[in-house]
Amino acid sequence: MSLLDYFRSSKKNTASTAKERLQIIVAHERRRRTSPDYLPQLERDILEVIRKYVDIADDQVSVTLEKSSDELSVLELNVTFPEDKRG
Amino acid sequence: MSLLDYFRSSKKNTASTAKERLQIIVAHERRRRTSPDYLPQLERDILEVIRKYVDIADDQVSVTLEKSSDELSVLELNVTFPEDKRG
Repeated sequence: MSLLDYFRSSKKNTASTAKERLQIIVAHERRRRTSPDYLPQLERDILEVIRKYVDIADDQVSVTLEKSSDELSVLELNVTFPEDKRG
Repeated sequence: MSLLDYFRSSKKNTASTAKERLQIIVAHERRRRTSPDYLPQLERDILEVIRKYVDIADDQVSVTLEKSSDELSVLELNVTFPEDKRG
């Protein structure tokens, strides 16, 4: 399955809610367990960068940080905009 | 399939190459076709932010911007680090 298919299928689930959404995923695969894990700081920086383009209130963002092992971390940021916010 | 599963399966493919990888995906689902598409600028900004934490040469980055429709855009940034780059 391609990534585009992944998001297309997740789009279906919310098709009726008429919202604008922005989803950011950062996957960090480390070869050595000792290499630094900078995902938490990166999360804050990326949010700041997005705020240059759109207004995001803190309650519009949900953040998930998953670790499947010491070597793979996946950070997920979901931003949902109210329907009449844009346009 | 969860996102973590997605990345776990893509990790398998490169398990033998012993590299560190960073993958950033930005999916933007717009409700109105007229709302601005800021992904190209966001791409540059995110790369700049990552460079605060790691050195990235231009040839270590591959960028894909896919549009499945006017309403869904998926930006993918793949960064591969040389094996002995990190200590």
